[in-house]
Order: sequence, then structure tokens, then C-alpha cells
Amino acid sequence: MPNPPLAPHYHAYIAALNGHTSLTPFVHDHVTHNGRRLTRANYQAMIDASSAAAPDLRFNVTMLVVADDTVAARLWFDCTPEREFLGCRATGRRVRFAEHVFYRFREGRIEEVWSLLDLKAVEEQLGKE
Amino acid sequence: MPNPPLAPHYHAYIAALNGHTSLTPFVHDHVTHNGRRLTRANYQAMIDASSAAAPDLRFNVTMLVVADDTVAARLWFDCTPEREFLGCRATGRRVRFAEHVFYRFREGRIEEVWSLLDLKAVEEQLGKE
Repeated sequence: MPNPPLAPHYHAYIAALNGHTSLTPFVHDHVTHNGRRLTRANYQAMIDASSAAAPDLRFNVTMLVVADDTVAARLWFDCTPEREFLGCRATGRRVRFAEHVFYRFREGRIEEVWSLLDLKAVEEQLGKE
Repeated sequence: MPNPPLAPHYHAYIAALNGHTSLTPFVHDHVTHNGRRLTRANYQAMIDASSAAAPDLRFNVTMLVVADDTVAARLWFDCTPEREFLGCRATGRRVRFAEHVFYRFREGRIEEVWSLLDLKAVEEQLGKE
């Protein structure tokens, strides 16, 4: 099964993240995230932990580059953590930051992710633990 | 003047960075880098400062996604800083880290750059100042 057109498919994945619906249509049973092999449940739990810490967290796609089986996205977040978030103590302050992430899709689902978060911006805005 | 095919053009830009040759064919007179407007000379000076601190710094493209006027690249560095590097003291240790970077080209030259470096990896390997 080839990949579906990846731009709309990726937007549907982001809608699933924001709507807290199943990632099964978008993520393989196993996914490699920054070189670490995870189950889809581990991957989901990692995302859920951020959403639990910052209930107003939403994924906003500000740049999307798609070619062949690869998607590159610049994501933008604007949220107010209520609990420890990305290694920083919640201070009641709002934080705005980017993620630059590459995904490799196979048969319509993600099997590899390389992600960099602007942790420096998060630390500067929240104050480091 | 439209953009030339951006994959080979981007590789030529990387070769110019690694060869320390002119960026004029690749970068506009002004370029916005993470929201900050720079002259090409400022941009070059920023890159030169990293190369001066780590003389064995080379840009290695490990992922490249090109669509329309946009390039997304995952770059890989493997170098041994001899002077302060990305805010970290040189310790004689080798550092390996990624950059995820998006570029917008116009008329064959870069006019906007959004870059995230894995500063956490650099700090963990070099030790924070």
C-alpha cells in the first residue's frame, strides 16, 4: 500500500493529536523517535504527558514541506503549563515555542520521527528548574 | 527569475559553507534568521564564528525535503570545539548534534531561515558554562 497524499494526511494526524483521537491510522505499531524505538502506546503517552501538563496545548502547523515519503513541519505552540513541562517547572506563565520535526511515512503511517524542540525558548519563558 | 532546482542548489550552498567560499550566490543581501533581519555579512559572520570555534565543523545533510520555494534539512555536525561554542565552554571533547532548518528561497537565494539546534545535546556533551 503506497502512502496517501501526505499533506492532507499529515493535517489529519495533527487534527487527531489536537482532538485526542486514536493515532492508529497515522502511526505504526512501532515508531522510532529520535533514534529510540517506541511502541505506539509509548509515543502516545509521551504526547499525552505534554497535553496533561499544558491542557491548552495545541499543535499548529506553520510550515509544511512534503516530498516522497517524508514530511517536514515547523510546529508552533502557545500554551500555559499547569504542571512541569519539558523539564521546566510550571510558573503560571505562558510559553510560545517551535518544534521542527521530520517524519518518514510507510504505507500511510509514521515509522520514524526526528524532532527538535526549542527548549531554550521554553526555559527562558518559564525559568529553568 | 524563478528558483533553480533547489535540491542541487542547496547542496551547492552547503559546499560553499564547507569550502568557506562566497555566500552571495545563495543568500540575499538581507536574510531573516529566526525572525531577526540580518545582512548577508552578519549571517556569514554568525556561521564563521562557529567555524572559528570548531575548525573541523562541517555541514552534513542527512535529510533534505524540497517543495516549491522551501527547503527543509536535517543537518548533522561532528566536531571538536577549541573555543566557546554555542554558549558552551570548549572542553576538548567532541560533540555530535543535529540542526533542523527551514529555508525560503526567492529568485534562487535564501531570504528566510528558521533554525533549531539541539543545544541540549551540545550542553550534555560539552558541559554547560
